[in-house]
Amino acid sequence: MLSKSQISLLKSLQHKNERKENGLFLVEGYKSVIEFINSSYKIEGIYHTASFEPKMLNLSQKINLYNISVTDIEKISSLKTPQEVIALVKIPVHPPLNNQKLKQKFSLVLDGIQDPGNMGTIIRTADWFGIDNIICSNDTVDAYNPKVVQASMGSLSRINVYYANIAEVLPQIGLPVFGAMLNGESIYKTRFGTEGLIVMGNEGKGLRPDIERLISKAVTIPRTGKAESLNVGIATALFCSEISRNKLGSQ
Amino acid sequence: MLSKSQISLLKSLQHKNERKENGLFLVEGYKSVIEFINSSYKIEGIYHTASFEPKMLNLSQKINLYNISVTDIEKISSLKTPQEVIALVKIPVHPPLNNQKLKQKFSLVLDGIQDPGNMGTIIRTADWFGIDNIICSNDTVDAYNPKVVQASMGSLSRINVYYANIAEVLPQIGLPVFGAMLNGESIYKTRFGTEGLIVMGNEGKGLRPDIERLISKAVTIPRTGKAESLNVGIATALFCSEISRNKLGSQ
Repeated sequence: MLSKSQISLLKSLQHKNERKENGLFLVEGYKSVIEFINSSYKIEGIYHTASFEPKMLNLSQKINLYNISVTDIEKISSLKTPQEVIALVKIPVHPPLNNQKLKQKFSLVLDGIQDPGNMGTIIRTADWFGIDNIICSNDTVDAYNPKVVQASMGSLSRINVYYANIAEVLPQIGLPVFGAMLNGESIYKTRFGTEGLIVMGNEGKGLRPDIERLISKAVTIPRTGKAESLNVGIATALFCSEISRNKLGSQ
Repeated sequence: MLSKSQISLLKSLQHKNERKENGLFLVEGYKSVIEFINSSYKIEGIYHTASFEPKMLNLSQKINLYNISVTDIEKISSLKTPQEVIALVKIPVHPPLNNQKLKQKFSLVLDGIQDPGNMGTIIRTADWFGIDNIICSNDTVDAYNPKVVQASMGSLSRINVYYANIAEVLPQIGLPVFGAMLNGESIYKTRFGTEGLIVMGNEGKGLRPDIERLISKAVTIPRTGKAESLNVGIATALFCSEISRNKLGSQ
């Protein structure tokens, strides 16, 4: 049985400041937990109900396992219908953004993405298309938010998510900066080349003016119907796909 | 002030069987309400708080307006943070699916999509790319579910969503049937031609075997990274975009 203070700590990790202070976050559900176990993340403990068989985790490393009641797992879970296994995971301390690491590839830059579902989907999509790095403005939703972790479906374990003052950082990186904008060249005609940054703006407001100034190439997803806008997760995926198409085409 | 029975009716529309029985659903928020007012949908009434200015609706038709309390709008809303205006809208009675209407264009077919957020995003994306018709298996989430309406951002007002036994209907339509599958031709190499159906499977299970049998062309979004799968809304958007690219390229 978990003590009141343990439950209180685990539960508090639903809040960003508590995650930051403790350097910890939760991963819920078997499939996601497995992906974090098989990653470079450090697992501090695994909490599971009696109905879950820890052998299924195939642990090769020593990790503390806690068999807890359904009531306790409901208390620490952020989900309406809690899963039977939850991992307590250490937030990694990223080495500072290394420009060298961004060369000869594409990375995503997110300017104020707010919705955790969108953020999680973007991480998952980046992982599908082999994009390793996502650089976020400091006001973008926290990647360790439980809803982000959930929507990323384990992909967060493989993608580097950096937070930075992107207005400062973008010019220092020294790569072509493609921006998703309403009045740009068609994404179907854009030559993306072999390296660059793809900048996506906030759900409602788009790119901020101080970021827009740093765009070297404005790119548009042509609209052939009537919707006012596309979901930002969808728009990001269309960029990732175009880059992937170019890469595959040139191989 | 609304009577208890009015509140009870409006609130009950969060449930599919009640929507079906009453032939009504709710649209929440100014932007979406405006799109439904400017559509062929019949608006039965508009409920708003005192802080909302009905002039902003620019009504040219006669629609009953109800100035109600914040407490009442909270009661009928499905949102955590209710908007200040909600429309009560009649569910249209679609004429039966007309094969003639599907010729010389692309339509989406959804096989058991469960998540309302995904469904709403698919409707919004179809609307962006000028795809007018979506044919859903009977167990696909209801298009008038409040979360679907919300995520579709008004696009539901322009898209025809049909429900049918798709295993029966697909062969009758007589168009090429493209299926999103793991082992197919690359989406970047597929010749989509000028008409067809794009079939997307359930979030976890993919296409059902009796639907898979009806696919004339299996198509795959090539994976260059490590994620196990793509979100179905994302995958649908990549298909819509490829079709749009072909169409624009041939103009």
